[in-house]
Amino acid sequence: MKSDELGEQKLSKLKGLAILSSDALSSVAYGTEQILIVLATIGVASFWYSIPIALCILILLFALILSYRQIIFAYPNGGGAYMVSKENMGVNFGLVAGGSLLVDYILTVAVSVSAGADALTSAFPGMHDYTVAIAVFFVVIITIMNLRGLTESATILMFPVYLFVICFIIMLIVGLYRVVTGDIPYTLQTDFGAPVAGISLFILLKAFASGTSALTGVEAISNAIPNFKDPAPKNAAKTLVIMGGMLATLFVGITFLSYYYGVGPKEKETIVSQIASITFGRNIMYYLIQGTTTVILILAANTGFSAFPQLAFNLAKDGFIPRKFTVRGDRLGYSNGIIVLGIASIVLIYLFNGKTEQLIPLYAVGVFIPFTLSQTGMTIKWFKEKSNGWIPKMLTNLFGAIISFIVLSIFFITKFEKVWFVLVFLPVIVYFFHQIKKHYDSVAVQLRINPEERISPYEGNVIVVPVAGITKVVEKSVNYAKSITDQVYAVYVAFDREEEKRFEEKWKKYYPDVRLVTLQSKYRSLVTPLMKFISTIENKAEDTNYQVTVLIPQFVTKRTWHHFLHNQSSLLIRAYLIFKKDVIVTTVPYHFNE
Amino acid sequence: MKSDELGEQKLSKLKGLAILSSDALSSVAYGTEQILIVLATIGVASFWYSIPIALCILILLFALILSYRQIIFAYPNGGGAYMVSKENMGVNFGLVAGGSLLVDYILTVAVSVSAGADALTSAFPGMHDYTVAIAVFFVVIITIMNLRGLTESATILMFPVYLFVICFIIMLIVGLYRVVTGDIPYTLQTDFGAPVAGISLFILLKAFASGTSALTGVEAISNAIPNFKDPAPKNAAKTLVIMGGMLATLFVGITFLSYYYGVGPKEKETIVSQIASITFGRNIMYYLIQGTTTVILILAANTGFSAFPQLAFNLAKDGFIPRKFTVRGDRLGYSNGIIVLGIASIVLIYLFNGKTEQLIPLYAVGVFIPFTLSQTGMTIKWFKEKSNGWIPKMLTNLFGAIISFIVLSIFFITKFEKVWFVLVFLPVIVYFFHQIKKHYDSVAVQLRINPEERISPYEGNVIVVPVAGITKVVEKSVNYAKSITDQVYAVYVAFDREEEKRFEEKWKKYYPDVRLVTLQSKYRSLVTPLMKFISTIENKAEDTNYQVTVLIPQFVTKRTWHHFLHNQSSLLIRAYLIFKKDVIVTTVPYHFNE
Repeated sequence: MKSDELGEQKLSKLKGLAILSSDALSSVAYGTEQILIVLATIGVASFWYSIPIALCILILLFALILSYRQIIFAYPNGGGAYMVSKENMGVNFGLVAGGSLLVDYILTVAVSVSAGADALTSAFPGMHDYTVAIAVFFVVIITIMNLRGLTESATILMFPVYLFVICFIIMLIVGLYRVVTGDIPYTLQTDFGAPVAGISLFILLKAFASGTSALTGVEAISNAIPNFKDPAPKNAAKTLVIMGGMLATLFVGITFLSYYYGVGPKEKETIVSQIASITFGRNIMYYLIQGTTTVILILAANTGFSAFPQLAFNLAKDGFIPRKFTVRGDRLGYSNGIIVLGIASIVLIYLFNGKTEQLIPLYAVGVFIPFTLSQTGMTIKWFKEKSNGWIPKMLTNLFGAIISFIVLSIFFITKFEKVWFVLVFLPVIVYFFHQIKKHYDSVAVQLRINPEERISPYEGNVIVVPVAGITKVVEKSVNYAKSITDQVYAVYVAFDREEEKRFEEKWKKYYPDVRLVTLQSKYRSLVTPLMKFISTIENKAEDTNYQVTVLIPQFVTKRTWHHFLHNQSSLLIRAYLIFKKDVIVTTVPYHFNE
Repeated sequence: MKSDELGEQKLSKLKGLAILSSDALSSVAYGTEQILIVLATIGVASFWYSIPIALCILILLFALILSYRQIIFAYPNGGGAYMVSKENMGVNFGLVAGGSLLVDYILTVAVSVSAGADALTSAFPGMHDYTVAIAVFFVVIITIMNLRGLTESATILMFPVYLFVICFIIMLIVGLYRVVTGDIPYTLQTDFGAPVAGISLFILLKAFASGTSALTGVEAISNAIPNFKDPAPKNAAKTLVIMGGMLATLFVGITFLSYYYGVGPKEKETIVSQIASITFGRNIMYYLIQGTTTVILILAANTGFSAFPQLAFNLAKDGFIPRKFTVRGDRLGYSNGIIVLGIASIVLIYLFNGKTEQLIPLYAVGVFIPFTLSQTGMTIKWFKEKSNGWIPKMLTNLFGAIISFIVLSIFFITKFEKVWFVLVFLPVIVYFFHQIKKHYDSVAVQLRINPEERISPYEGNVIVVPVAGITKVVEKSVNYAKSITDQVYAVYVAFDREEEKRFEEKWKKYYPDVRLVTLQSKYRSLVTPLMKFISTIENKAEDTNYQVTVLIPQFVTKRTWHHFLHNQSSLLIRAYLIFKKDVIVTTVPYHFNE
């Protein structure tokens, strides 16, 4: 794709919503279930608490949507948590956000495909034993598609995303209708508000924290504003609000139905599957619900793959990760990132045995650290700038920051055993970011030309041509050397006297005008005597400001496997020479015809 | 080790025997057992047949010793089956022998360490479940020791080999004494010569073929004659005869004792262990027997590692395998061979689950093919040369050839399902040998200089310097280019107009005398426009007989991991350039200080 063309494919609100909301909307596939899994440790009697917990999460969602709406207008070029934190809170907070996001993208992939596999095996229980294999298969497919440069066509992606939303809304309507009409038997375990033995604040907080996993992905739109049609910020903000509304509707709807249907977490069937199954029976609508859920979860995993290069670009631009990630057209840089992401998420899936609920605490922490940091950064920004009407804006982001921080704290308090790893990982990764930056800074200084101290031009060249016989390659090398300088040394390493003498005589016949130096190698090593000789030449050349060049022949074979039939001594010599500071190495290719 | 010194460490007969006989002598650890495993399929009543079978194997041993004695005198420089077959029967028979030996060395390692692990786990039955792991561990240790260039000191090796022989002889004497004096209860299952139901010629032949595994390794001495003290052939021949005598004694002794003790094959204990256990009880002597057996089997595996480079040297000298194996001092060539041997034998051990008796048929076939071929070769040699007293010599080798061929045929008849793989493998490997040879021959022709058609010298040089900025590396490259020719093109790939303009102005300030070519890259690719430009220059240069050189900077970082922080575009460009026939690539190294 030409760089000029990048600008031409701007997103309408409808398409932007489809592309950027799969991560957030797909979270409803597991959000409610996470709450119920925690409550189930107390007993089914506590399930009614899922309703107030879901409402608390709604408040949180509302705060986040308001906060991110402000980020959209403040950072119309796309304000990722890394950028916002770095600009307003300093580089280290930015790096913490960046490091968290790196983990987050891996977990987005792992969690989404695991949940996708769950959705699939709920519909087809016979496949339950292969959940891990299915999840890994999904990752492999997504990785390959991304490696092959699949560009997400917004028009094509719209279809499954909206189909998912429509199917779920139909399910909610039909479900509610059947509940209200009493068509579905009343199977409540406990009445709403009934006292529950054994419930504690700790459990409720834990359930709340687990439920916040339904909010993962809401930040996606604020990172992608420039992709929207003009006026981009306004369109993005509207899209964000629409997405928030959809997410709220689906999440609350699912949670209410799960309560009224009296369903609870099962080993082999997701909550959504149970609800769909009760609402429709196992008919076409049920399979449509499970199918679109699987597809949207796979699309959500895919967003990890497109978000990563963006973050990598920003980190690389600042020198915190290898520069190659800044080259947008460089498929290699992208490919490395894609492969790393794919492998890392497969490792995670194996480590956690494909269990979504085991992966989610880490995932949510990886999400709420940047949430907290970017909201805090925004608060500081308003406070510093004190622009028109800054106080309500600041308060909005402050509220977002506080509420995100509270969620984060709840995670560390209630699920420390599952999230401590983040506390080890973040300092390590930030340390590495700094080490990389340090290296780049030092390199920049070393490479800078001081106009006062220009390198003086060379007086001339000395060329060393290691020869192993008299062949066309040697002929080519000697010719080339002679075209550059008179100072040509052909060097031959002999293993015995006789061989040496024979070669010297032959050489004189073919190249009477080129000096031949023969070296005795008693230890049958080629490299050692050669390197010694080159060092001698190097020392001499240094005194006279001559440049030493060594010519190394390289055979280019016609078939790849032939390559292995040729002595790798030239590679070996080149490897040694690269450590000599003042020797230039010239490769003289020789292409075989057969 | 200096090449001159190679000659100084000649072997006495005592030391030669120790170094070269471990492979053959260690075979007694499994030879008898292989016979009994076959007989056990009929029942213990048939065990008395092990005695006549062992005597048949003795005759075979006698024939082989006589035959190899003649090879020693006919090929005093070491007559491996490959050399003997090639010289007397043509190249294809030589290659079949060579290919068989390649398999054979892998199997020598696999069989010996598996048998060594069996010896160990017989003494310590608790370790039986780890037999495979122990065998693999042995291979890993031997591989590492060989990679580190462990030179077998004959003096050190003498100790375990002779200790093994002495311990076994003590066991035979004590065992026979106790049998004769009736000290050991008479536990014969059947009397010698008693008729056995179900016995067939097929079974007897199969048992005989299995038993011939006791003879593997007898060829070792004939391959290593130059290592002996003068007169080398005579000393080697005497050593061979002594070894034959020892092998015969140990093998027959073990077989007799096993019959008189009435022991049979057991899942978890070797025959030798059972005999030692009955002879001594589980005292120090028992553990000494098992310990020296393990050690000599490991030494036998080690001979695979020293024999391989010798064979590789001969095959490589003739151009049938990569040339690098001819460079004796080249640790790389040896290392490759050692690693391949180690990995291949580990794979075999896993495939056959460490079961010695499963590996032995392939092993024996791998041994008897070269046996047959070299004896046939010798027969032909005597017949062609008709030198003094050739008839008895020819008959001796003919007898050896026929008897080896019979053994081979018995293998293919009685154990086809285990050895058919050899029939697939040999044609394939011989085909590859020829393909490699063909390539070398064609290369030699392509490289040969025709004195009538010498390449005309170059008129001059054009140098292309891709630049990405104005840095010390660029300064160095430009200086170097200017010292070679006036025809220097600096090339800059710009991604947009503004950048291009800015760079052009800066360049004029620093290098007013060097032409700068800026290339527009709309697709953000560096390589494509650069390659196009180089092709244009190449075409121009060709008309005027100028040589095109491209200078590529290479950063040499101080720490290895820093290397990954630098753009690999220079590697990429070099990789593309290597396929351009007429472009020479020069690497300008730049070493960072930190």
